[in-house]
Amino acid sequence: MEYKLLKNIQGPADVKKLSNDELIELAAEVREALFNRTTKIGGHFGPNFGAVELTIALHYVFDSPKDQFVFDVAHQTYTHKMLTGRAAAYYDDAHFGDVCGFTHPNESEHDMFYIGHTSTSVSLATGLAKGRDVSGKKGNVVAIIGDGSLSGGEALEGIDYAGEMDSNLIIIVNDNEQSIAENHGGLYKNLEELRKSGGTCENNLFRAMGLDYMYVEEGNDIQALIKAFSEVKDIDHPTVVHVHTQKGKGYAPAEKDKEEWHYAIPFNRETGERVNYDGESYQDIFASYILDKVKKDSSVVCVTAAVPGALGLSPELRGKMGKNYVDVGIAEEQAVAMCSGIAKNGGKPIFTTNATFAQRVYDQVTQDVGLNQSAVTIVLFSTSIFGMGDATHIGISAMGIFTNIPGIVYLSPSNREEFMAMLDYSIEQNDHPTIIAVPCDGVNAAKYEVASDYSDINKYQVCEKGSDVAVLALGDFFNIGCETAKLIEEKTGKKATLVNPRYASGLDKALLDDLIKDHKTIVTLEDGILEGGFGQKIASYLGGKDVKVLNYGFEKRFYDGISSSEVLKMNRITPEQIVEDIM
Amino acid sequence: MEYKLLKNIQGPADVKKLSNDELIELAAEVREALFNRTTKIGGHFGPNFGAVELTIALHYVFDSPKDQFVFDVAHQTYTHKMLTGRAAAYYDDAHFGDVCGFTHPNESEHDMFYIGHTSTSVSLATGLAKGRDVSGKKGNVVAIIGDGSLSGGEALEGIDYAGEMDSNLIIIVNDNEQSIAENHGGLYKNLEELRKSGGTCENNLFRAMGLDYMYVEEGNDIQALIKAFSEVKDIDHPTVVHVHTQKGKGYAPAEKDKEEWHYAIPFNRETGERVNYDGESYQDIFASYILDKVKKDSSVVCVTAAVPGALGLSPELRGKMGKNYVDVGIAEEQAVAMCSGIAKNGGKPIFTTNATFAQRVYDQVTQDVGLNQSAVTIVLFSTSIFGMGDATHIGISAMGIFTNIPGIVYLSPSNREEFMAMLDYSIEQNDHPTIIAVPCDGVNAAKYEVASDYSDINKYQVCEKGSDVAVLALGDFFNIGCETAKLIEEKTGKKATLVNPRYASGLDKALLDDLIKDHKTIVTLEDGILEGGFGQKIASYLGGKDVKVLNYGFEKRFYDGISSSEVLKMNRITPEQIVEDIM
Repeated sequence: MEYKLLKNIQGPADVKKLSNDELIELAAEVREALFNRTTKIGGHFGPNFGAVELTIALHYVFDSPKDQFVFDVAHQTYTHKMLTGRAAAYYDDAHFGDVCGFTHPNESEHDMFYIGHTSTSVSLATGLAKGRDVSGKKGNVVAIIGDGSLSGGEALEGIDYAGEMDSNLIIIVNDNEQSIAENHGGLYKNLEELRKSGGTCENNLFRAMGLDYMYVEEGNDIQALIKAFSEVKDIDHPTVVHVHTQKGKGYAPAEKDKEEWHYAIPFNRETGERVNYDGESYQDIFASYILDKVKKDSSVVCVTAAVPGALGLSPELRGKMGKNYVDVGIAEEQAVAMCSGIAKNGGKPIFTTNATFAQRVYDQVTQDVGLNQSAVTIVLFSTSIFGMGDATHIGISAMGIFTNIPGIVYLSPSNREEFMAMLDYSIEQNDHPTIIAVPCDGVNAAKYEVASDYSDINKYQVCEKGSDVAVLALGDFFNIGCETAKLIEEKTGKKATLVNPRYASGLDKALLDDLIKDHKTIVTLEDGILEGGFGQKIASYLGGKDVKVLNYGFEKRFYDGISSSEVLKMNRITPEQIVEDIM
Repeated sequence: MEYKLLKNIQGPADVKKLSNDELIELAAEVREALFNRTTKIGGHFGPNFGAVELTIALHYVFDSPKDQFVFDVAHQTYTHKMLTGRAAAYYDDAHFGDVCGFTHPNESEHDMFYIGHTSTSVSLATGLAKGRDVSGKKGNVVAIIGDGSLSGGEALEGIDYAGEMDSNLIIIVNDNEQSIAENHGGLYKNLEELRKSGGTCENNLFRAMGLDYMYVEEGNDIQALIKAFSEVKDIDHPTVVHVHTQKGKGYAPAEKDKEEWHYAIPFNRETGERVNYDGESYQDIFASYILDKVKKDSSVVCVTAAVPGALGLSPELRGKMGKNYVDVGIAEEQAVAMCSGIAKNGGKPIFTTNATFAQRVYDQVTQDVGLNQSAVTIVLFSTSIFGMGDATHIGISAMGIFTNIPGIVYLSPSNREEFMAMLDYSIEQNDHPTIIAVPCDGVNAAKYEVASDYSDINKYQVCEKGSDVAVLALGDFFNIGCETAKLIEEKTGKKATLVNPRYASGLDKALLDDLIKDHKTIVTLEDGILEGGFGQKIASYLGGKDVKVLNYGFEKRFYDGISSSEVLKMNRITPEQIVEDIM
């Protein structure tokens, strides 16, 4: 591919010069560049292939950055990046590293925010509009939000608030009839009615929330989009433009299986085949565990919030769970409160999601669950530095968020067997809410005995009894703890004590009181930001005693695009560095 | 008043026996009992007076606790309590202490949850319904939600999810045309259309979210309500019953000024006059500060989320701020994200609310604000043990929530002048988001010099330089720190060092490194839960040094209905106890 047009696009002004035929050709070149990148290094696939024409039309009609775009989740912005001076990052392999997967103000003045979570665009855009108005600026503010994101509370709050604004705000609803998985929620019936009636049906969610409304059926037709956007440009009040697009447009496998192709790892364009990962994952373990559980006990309910695929819950498996599986859509608050209700009425609810999305439910975990002591089980994936690399998605704050809420038992298993035993315990007991942080550093088998009962809350497991130095290594970092203990013995000739704390939310005071009798140094290790986490609780408890406490975890900052091994080194979390500090 | 009928109501079965005339008489007795309690000890007024008939009809038609009620916020449940065996708590002064202001499962099997935050009822009810279905139970699940609560994200998520359920769920929308203050959001235009058209207008928010719908205009007419509820009882799918009630019904001043009478402190029934509090409050200080600021600088925007009255922002003052004041409704997520947008476009946003409600915005403060380094100012009231006594409303988790988010500067002023100086600094700078925890322990004047510039982040203020013991006393607890330092000198003859840390979110490492040279003990004091808070950061930093660190704050638990002085004593936070520990 020569990318004749795309190579000459330095910015939006160059898009505006093109004829209709050229715009169509540009869309084809953009898709080729998308293929070039995603086949080789993966990325969000369906959202980008579906929004090519939409994005070209946006830049053709509006004048970014004077006109401001806020893309919801910002995972569909590859075309936007190509049209704003960053095309090489897609067509030229040497420049893949130039861009991240989301909008980021450091990359371009055309990116208003660094975004990665869903359902924030309308609220952010209402703010841009208000800021524009109070500071006497001009221009359009345009939020681009997918149908999937509409189920999120922040999005609905934003749309509701927008409905009483009295100045320019354009909300483009990019309706591709799909969330990450299938959509869930009553409003999607209305979107369907609107699509079927060409936007003319009696009930209209957006009008019911006080907004003006326009429908565009041909959401992958550049001219239809240009016409619609030109009509609303410079409008003096908030309006919705409901655009019907096709997710994955331009690649047959993605058009067919929208969920499978929401995100792609590197794949073969001819066959659609992807690089297969070998070996067991915690997602697999959880998925087969929960299916088995549901089959044996019809009161078990597995609840997700729109990301089942990332948790190992395939469409087939969800089908097998039937009514014992609930996807609430992108609506974590709903998920957690619903689980509290399920538990109150004799069900056994398990809510599972990625830690980064659980950040939305601090209040629900506190009020709806903790305060009511509802025996909800929350299974958090990706609580770790191992894995996702974007600051928007790293889950290393989970301990700081949830271990400080009264009434919550936060468990950190360190291996496969412990994870399953903790799941079993948590689901079957009816005394307290439990959060389980799924390990992320590969699937390890247990090295020490694994308990089946965890009702003796905050009882740590002493794995090796030594003296002088005790290493308390939590969850994911238990292996680093093992290696550290070994290295201590090698270097000092004295055996160190090795503890698997298991409970991140409380102290085993009896053990700590005992340890300080023959230990001079207590080392804590945790796969999370130190502040608000596990180790600092221990440092505080022992602050008045004659013992040194060394806490290892991550300094508080946004880690963005840094490898996990680098982060570990920066924070001196290697056995060598730790032993050096102890000496 | 004899309370002839009310005294014979032991439970819902007794309500069902009454004739229509008796039900009307019962409503009158209930209102008398409401007067008896609220004139003497205060309470939520308008919501309870407006929902008397609604609650009587609910208990007449449904069979609680087999049928389950979830009252949103649960501040309108005084009548519900009277009809479920707790009437004496209202008509008999000696029994005022029998009940709290919200539903609480410890009080009665008719109270499903302990609730105090808004917008959770529908989500909780969907869970009860699901739990009922998977465990083979029968019965109606009924959520009762006010129009004000509908603007909250969790409520909208819940309604949307309910729209795809396929079993019994009844959502009663108690529409009294008012939130705590006036309603804000586009959906309220639709509620108005629905009221005006008797529920028949073209657009219908609830139908647009997939729900069945019924309208009842006479929301204070018991028979009209009984008829409507009887029609939906045992329905096999989710439905909304939209009921038009009058807030404050039965007391002329409350019918007239709904905001003023949402909550009442003790008052004179004849005149409506309330006990006046003398003296300055931080609410007053903030209110006059912000009005002045807005007048001088039109780029300043003060944003609230439905609780302006509690923050000192009267209707008159809000009117004076004009377009520089925004109430987003009960929609904290919207408020925070909007502020990020305002800051990005050159505005100076200040979001203010009570700390307990800010619990809903962890993700927004992290992603929309922190990650984007938007210079938003968030002013949190009631972060303290001083003040509110319900576990649902105590704000002592604020530090644990917000000081551990990267990129956030959390300031804890200890007196009037410092509070105002920090406000000024925060609003005018453009470098970082700032949270300011408003002091709660009365308004104190500054005892030491107050800085005007806080850009030297994490620089603590040494107020008195001594040796041996250093007392780091944060914000609200600075006064306890002063007294403790004084007592130390009295007892030991040695002057203690006294530090006003000012920044709760970071360490003054240079100072700490310096202090340990001639101090053996570092004492930290904070008005918050210890875990995840300020002092533990210090204990961790100094964990490897030859110094004792004693952290004073609150043990992690839900403090419910306990006086602040008791909580202080329980946690050994009196100067005498602290000095005893040091010795």
